[in-house]
Amino acid sequence: MKVNGKHYRTIWIDETVETVIKIIDQRFLPHKFIIEDLKTVHDVALAIKEMHVRGAGLIGATAGYGMYLAALEAPQDNSFTAYLENAGDYLKATRPTAVNLSWAVEKQLIAIKNETAIADKIAISFKTANEIADLDAGYCQRIGEFGVSIIEEISRQKGGKTVNVLTHCNAGWLAFVDYGSATSPIYAAFDKGLDVHVWVDETRPRNQGASLTAWELGQHRVPHTIIPDNVGGHLMQHGQVDMVIVGSDRTTSTGDVANKIGTYLKALAAIDNQIPFYVALPSTSIDWDMENGIEEIPIEERGADEVKYMEGLCEGEIKRILLTPANSPATNYAFDVTPARLITGLITERGICSPNKESILNLFPEKKS
Amino acid sequence: MKVNGKHYRTIWIDETVETVIKIIDQRFLPHKFIIEDLKTVHDVALAIKEMHVRGAGLIGATAGYGMYLAALEAPQDNSFTAYLENAGDYLKATRPTAVNLSWAVEKQLIAIKNETAIADKIAISFKTANEIADLDAGYCQRIGEFGVSIIEEISRQKGGKTVNVLTHCNAGWLAFVDYGSATSPIYAAFDKGLDVHVWVDETRPRNQGASLTAWELGQHRVPHTIIPDNVGGHLMQHGQVDMVIVGSDRTTSTGDVANKIGTYLKALAAIDNQIPFYVALPSTSIDWDMENGIEEIPIEERGADEVKYMEGLCEGEIKRILLTPANSPATNYAFDVTPARLITGLITERGICSPNKESILNLFPEKKS
Repeated sequence: MKVNGKHYRTIWIDETVETVIKIIDQRFLPHKFIIEDLKTVHDVALAIKEMHVRGAGLIGATAGYGMYLAALEAPQDNSFTAYLENAGDYLKATRPTAVNLSWAVEKQLIAIKNETAIADKIAISFKTANEIADLDAGYCQRIGEFGVSIIEEISRQKGGKTVNVLTHCNAGWLAFVDYGSATSPIYAAFDKGLDVHVWVDETRPRNQGASLTAWELGQHRVPHTIIPDNVGGHLMQHGQVDMVIVGSDRTTSTGDVANKIGTYLKALAAIDNQIPFYVALPSTSIDWDMENGIEEIPIEERGADEVKYMEGLCEGEIKRILLTPANSPATNYAFDVTPARLITGLITERGICSPNKESILNLFPEKKS
Repeated sequence: MKVNGKHYRTIWIDETVETVIKIIDQRFLPHKFIIEDLKTVHDVALAIKEMHVRGAGLIGATAGYGMYLAALEAPQDNSFTAYLENAGDYLKATRPTAVNLSWAVEKQLIAIKNETAIADKIAISFKTANEIADLDAGYCQRIGEFGVSIIEEISRQKGGKTVNVLTHCNAGWLAFVDYGSATSPIYAAFDKGLDVHVWVDETRPRNQGASLTAWELGQHRVPHTIIPDNVGGHLMQHGQVDMVIVGSDRTTSTGDVANKIGTYLKALAAIDNQIPFYVALPSTSIDWDMENGIEEIPIEERGADEVKYMEGLCEGEIKRILLTPANSPATNYAFDVTPARLITGLITERGICSPNKESILNLFPEKKS
C-alpha cells in the first residue's frame, strides 16, 4: 500500500545492509511516520512485545525475520541449534494469543534443521523469512479478491449506492505485510471504483482503529468515519451498516474467532439486525487443534495503564494523559471470542466458507485427519 | 453522598446568597473538584449545554433552578410570563434527549402561572425548584431501596460471595441530585455490608464511567474496576458479571430505553449470556406518549471533536490530545435505544416492573388514559 504516494510493505530488509530489518514503528501513528531498524533478536522481541508492530500477520513475519537475526547472532558451533530454539521460545513468549507467531518460529526451526552447514542454515533462514512475508502478502491479496465479491453484490443490490462496511480494530495493511485481511476486500472494492465507506471503530483501549485503520484508509483515500466502539449497534439499528468485516487473531477449526476485544459485541448487534458479519483471515491464523474458542483460546491480559492513560498529539508532541481517578483499578483483556454461530462467513486465501468444521475443511482438505 | 468525607448534593443554593446556585463543574472530575456559581439563566443554559452538569435528573433539577433565576431576572411587568416562557424554550433547546429537562421547565411554568403577583411568582419558582431537586433525590433513594433486593437475592444465591454489577456511563449520584439511579441500589447494598464489586464501563467518547462513576464509587469506597466499553461481553461469557444496572435518559411507555450510546450492546451481551439486565429510572424519565423507542426517541448527535480529542491530566494540568489523523471525520451519537425485549426489569421509585405497558401502568395507574 502507499504512504505519501510511495509504496511500502510494513516490514522489509534494508536495501543496502541485509542484516538490518526495517519496520514502521506503529506506536507513533497516525501522528508521526517513523521507520525503525531491528538488528537483534532482542530488538525484534521488544518490537513485538511493546507493539511497535502488531497484528497477526505482521507479528508472524516479524518473528520470521527475528529468527533470521537469531541465526546471524548465534554461536557458529554445535550450540547453534540450541541458540535458535531458545530464541524461538523467547519470541513466542512476547504475545500469547496470535498463532502466527509460533507458526513462523516453527517454520524457521524446521527449515534451519533441514540444513547441515551453518552457512546454509543462515541462508535458509533468510530465504524462509522472506517467504513468510511474501506468503502473508499473497494470502491477503487473495482474501481481497474473494471478499470483494461480497461488496460487489451488496453494491448491486443497493443500485450502486454507498456500501457501508463496519470494521473493528486494525486488521489492515498495517497488521500484515501488505493489503490487510479485513481491509483487503475494501481496498479491492475501492480500487475497482465501487462506492464504499468504512465505519472505523476506534477500538479502545489502544485505539488501533482511530489511529491505524483511519490512517491507512486515509493514505489510500478510502472514505471513512471514525466512531466510538459504542456506536456500531445504533448505526445497525438505523440501516447505516451493510456489512461487518473484521480480522482474526486465532480461529478454531470449528469457526470460533478470537479477535480484538469488543468484536463479540459487534457480532451480537449484527445478528440482531440481520447484517452479514464476515471474518477475513489467512489460514495461518487457524488453530486446527482447537474446537471451542471460548473455553480454549488463551486471552492476553495487558496492563491497566493502557486503560487509565491515553497517548495523543498535544501542541506538536505526543503526550500521555490520565483519564481516570489515579487510584481506581482497571482491567484490560486484549481479545474476546466470537462464537461461530454469530458469524456469516470466513474469507480466506482459498475462498469464502461457513464457520463450521466441514466447510472449513472443504477449503483445506489437507487438514482432514 | 460524600466527597472527601463531607456530604454534598450535586446542586444546591448558596448558604448566604439565595440568588446563587452552586453546582459541581463535572468537566474537571475526576482530577479537580471545582464548585461553580450559576447566577443567570444564561449561566444555567451554558452549564447544561456544555455539560458542567449532565445526567437526566440533574439536568432537570438544574433547569428548575434556571427557571427560578429567570424569574429573578425577568422584567417586573406584564412581560414577566413571556420572559419566563422564552427562558423555558432557551433551556429546553440545550439538550434534546433528556425528558426531565422539559418536564422541569413545564412544572415551573405551571406553578408560576398559578400565582398572580410577581413576588408570589418568584417565591413559588424558588419553592418549586427546591421541590424538583428534593423529588429527584427522594425518587433515587427509593430506587435504591427497591433495587437492593435484587442484589441481596444474587448475594444469597452465591452464598455471600462477591456480587459483580456492570454499569455503563454515569447514572450515579453525579447524574442526579443525590444517590443516583443505577448506583442507588449499589450504594444501598454496600451500606448494608453486602460484598459488591462494580465493573465500570469507561463510556467513550466522554468517559463518564472512567471519570465520574469511578470517582464517585471511589469517594464512597465501593470496590470497582474500570473497563473499556469493549470488555463487558468477554466478562459475561466468563461468568464475571452477575447483573447489569444502567440508567435511562428517556423511557417509552412500552419499556424501550434510550441511554448512553453503547447500552444496547451490553444488553445484547447480557441476554446472550442469560444475565439479568436492569434499568433504574425515576418515572420523570418516562415519556408516556412514546411507544417505539428506536423510531421515536430523538438521538442527540454531538461534535466530532469529542471523539477525535480526549482530555486528561498531564503533568498536573488538564490537557487535550488528538487521537486520530487530523483529517479523518468522526461521528458522535450520544445515545442509543435498548428495546424492551432485552430488558429484565425497570427499577422505579414505586417498585420494580417488567418493561411493558401493562406492568409499567400497574405501578403508575394514574397514567392510564
